[in-house]
Amino acid sequence: MEKVFASIITIGDELLIGQVIDTNSAWMAQELNKIGIILKHRIAVGDVWNDIWQALDEESKHVSLILITGGLGPTADDITKPLLCEYFGGRMVIHQPTLDHVTHIFEKLNRPMIDRNAKQAEVPDNCTVLKNERGTAPGMLFKKDGKIFISLPGVPHEMKWLMSNQVIPMIPEFFKTGFIEHRTLLTAGIGESFLAEMIKDVEEALPPQIKLAYLPNSGMVRLRLTAFGFDKDELQKEIDIHFQLLKQTVKEFLVTDEDIPMELVVGNLLKQKGKSMATAESCTGGYIAHLMTSHAGSSAYFTGSIVSYDNKIKKMLLHVTEETIQSVGVVSETVVKQMATSVLDIMQTDYSIAVSGIMGPGGATAEKPVGMVWIAVANKEKTVAKLFNFRYTRQRNIELTATNALNLLRIFIMENS
Amino acid sequence: MEKVFASIITIGDELLIGQVIDTNSAWMAQELNKIGIILKHRIAVGDVWNDIWQALDEESKHVSLILITGGLGPTADDITKPLLCEYFGGRMVIHQPTLDHVTHIFEKLNRPMIDRNAKQAEVPDNCTVLKNERGTAPGMLFKKDGKIFISLPGVPHEMKWLMSNQVIPMIPEFFKTGFIEHRTLLTAGIGESFLAEMIKDVEEALPPQIKLAYLPNSGMVRLRLTAFGFDKDELQKEIDIHFQLLKQTVKEFLVTDEDIPMELVVGNLLKQKGKSMATAESCTGGYIAHLMTSHAGSSAYFTGSIVSYDNKIKKMLLHVTEETIQSVGVVSETVVKQMATSVLDIMQTDYSIAVSGIMGPGGATAEKPVGMVWIAVANKEKTVAKLFNFRYTRQRNIELTATNALNLLRIFIMENS
Repeated sequence: MEKVFASIITIGDELLIGQVIDTNSAWMAQELNKIGIILKHRIAVGDVWNDIWQALDEESKHVSLILITGGLGPTADDITKPLLCEYFGGRMVIHQPTLDHVTHIFEKLNRPMIDRNAKQAEVPDNCTVLKNERGTAPGMLFKKDGKIFISLPGVPHEMKWLMSNQVIPMIPEFFKTGFIEHRTLLTAGIGESFLAEMIKDVEEALPPQIKLAYLPNSGMVRLRLTAFGFDKDELQKEIDIHFQLLKQTVKEFLVTDEDIPMELVVGNLLKQKGKSMATAESCTGGYIAHLMTSHAGSSAYFTGSIVSYDNKIKKMLLHVTEETIQSVGVVSETVVKQMATSVLDIMQTDYSIAVSGIMGPGGATAEKPVGMVWIAVANKEKTVAKLFNFRYTRQRNIELTATNALNLLRIFIMENS
Repeated sequence: MEKVFASIITIGDELLIGQVIDTNSAWMAQELNKIGIILKHRIAVGDVWNDIWQALDEESKHVSLILITGGLGPTADDITKPLLCEYFGGRMVIHQPTLDHVTHIFEKLNRPMIDRNAKQAEVPDNCTVLKNERGTAPGMLFKKDGKIFISLPGVPHEMKWLMSNQVIPMIPEFFKTGFIEHRTLLTAGIGESFLAEMIKDVEEALPPQIKLAYLPNSGMVRLRLTAFGFDKDELQKEIDIHFQLLKQTVKEFLVTDEDIPMELVVGNLLKQKGKSMATAESCTGGYIAHLMTSHAGSSAYFTGSIVSYDNKIKKMLLHVTEETIQSVGVVSETVVKQMATSVLDIMQTDYSIAVSGIMGPGGATAEKPVGMVWIAVANKEKTVAKLFNFRYTRQRNIELTATNALNLLRIFIMENS
């Protein structure tokens, strides 16, 4: 067994002008990690012949497995396939099973197939074709000087299908890898440097094969232990001892010992207690509801939301009175508490969240600056509200409001159930 | 003037194990493009001394400007600062203005400052310190062999502040660059290969300094022209001629000739007509409302949403009857039409969107597979519904439902106003 290193090369000008955020690489990295492969580099290059060629040369110096995504479309800007053909010294041939597959796709869609589509079935004669059941561009595997090169389409759902169904299952043919184990916990209410002081002894006692990382985000800090080894049981036993120690040390600030987002921590808590929740959202505009419902199975605990972006909706549906708005304003303790109790009542849930604030860049006044947010959480007996001041960009203010609202509900559920 | 190439090196194990998606690089790429700098590579490396060192060596062979983000925190896993100090042959010294700034931050927060925080004020003596008004880790600028290296913190809002306020303004001191111009349009209702056939003549007539890219996403295709040159007026004139030609050629499928997302196309259309909208969302769980409200100024046209995730909310708030659900099910034309007219009526808006579908992975039946979605749009006179079948992952199904619902409303507004 050996430590196996990989690199991901993503191809496309859109990645270099900032038009597209690369979400493929993160997902691929996770899949590689699961089978014990360590990602050394992720590199993005444009649709430029020399740059792609150079990246292949350079990465093959450092790693044994090179995954390439993008540039396989039927249009002229996509040059990956002819480049790989030349790089590995092959010639283009029609791959009959791919041609049949492409033809079948167009028949099923009841669309005429044009030359451009048929060209998708041309592949270098020195590659192993990986059938792409989700699209017309097949994956391709090349071997050179003991290194494995795999080219995949850049369309995320096609790439993911190929990774899960073709690439990952064939890796053991080529490499005998070790194991990688991660343990992650999330803390809230303590800054990164204070956390570092608190866990100093645990950190210094870590053996060299276990690494600790700090991941601050949305005003919370995630801690991650990563270990690599060749004996899986031994490795798990060892990382678990240090992880227990870490958990114990930060227990006052611990949100979860799983690598899951805040909304799932709340969802799991509700599910476990057989309780439900709803939201009344002004400034977050449905984002909290979206977070809750982006996870399968959320219908077990998430009932719904009233997004009262316009103040008339706060009055018409959430029983906020014009007098209240006139006297204290919509960004106020009174208004969020009213929103929280109203939505709890209307949706007949066990818990509710309500938010009202100024996300920016406009809408601020002298007394109510951008980032000022009132958040309330409620159950039938009790309503609690808290004031926050974020003062970042609109997007970040929305995210911070959502995460903190969910954390407030999490604490409220634990204290009031 | 010259073509100036840059690379971005992002540092952090979290990028290589897929725990974090790199959104920094895309934003930085856009900012560099605006001042005429071409990004050649984006490379992610772990918190590993040799890998960072190698990346610095490698990138400085290819480009004149190297931007480095990440690894500047106060914790032990962050090694960028000592590494840069050694790489550029300096020694660490206390930087008094930074120490004053860090002290001031802790005073303002009313928190005790510990050694670890004071260490943030140590910098290599051979760098130019770039003050970070958003945090404790300063930016650092180094020069070596005519190349410029700039190290920035990885925390997005700190990095962005430093880029906008320190880095971008000082670039003209170092480089006389050319200009980059982009023109982007969005099409809907035509596949990538058919679009390519349609615009073949326009594509073949493009001069070498103008590149065309196809960016398929959410069942729609974005086309982008990119040009580089040294005479800005000339460049704009030339790219606009080709862009007009392109727009004219695809006009039947043209959604917008701006580089903006679908929700902003709809928002702008509503604003221009002085109209308002609301949504009734089941399967998208508030995602459409979130998209609409993620843009500043959306209160001018977006009123609110009823997220009826639980069927009881469809009945209680949106007047869907139990009989209808029993006879045709919640994923049906009747139900979405009822939801659309109800929310229009309740929120007193000019237009509404309603969606009901099965996002998966669970919830499917023999007649109603994962990805089956009914979408309705309405105004006071008319309600139109359409059936879609997406059949991807939950996340992608939600996104596709939202984009297609917004496109349906866009067409509806244009045809019925």
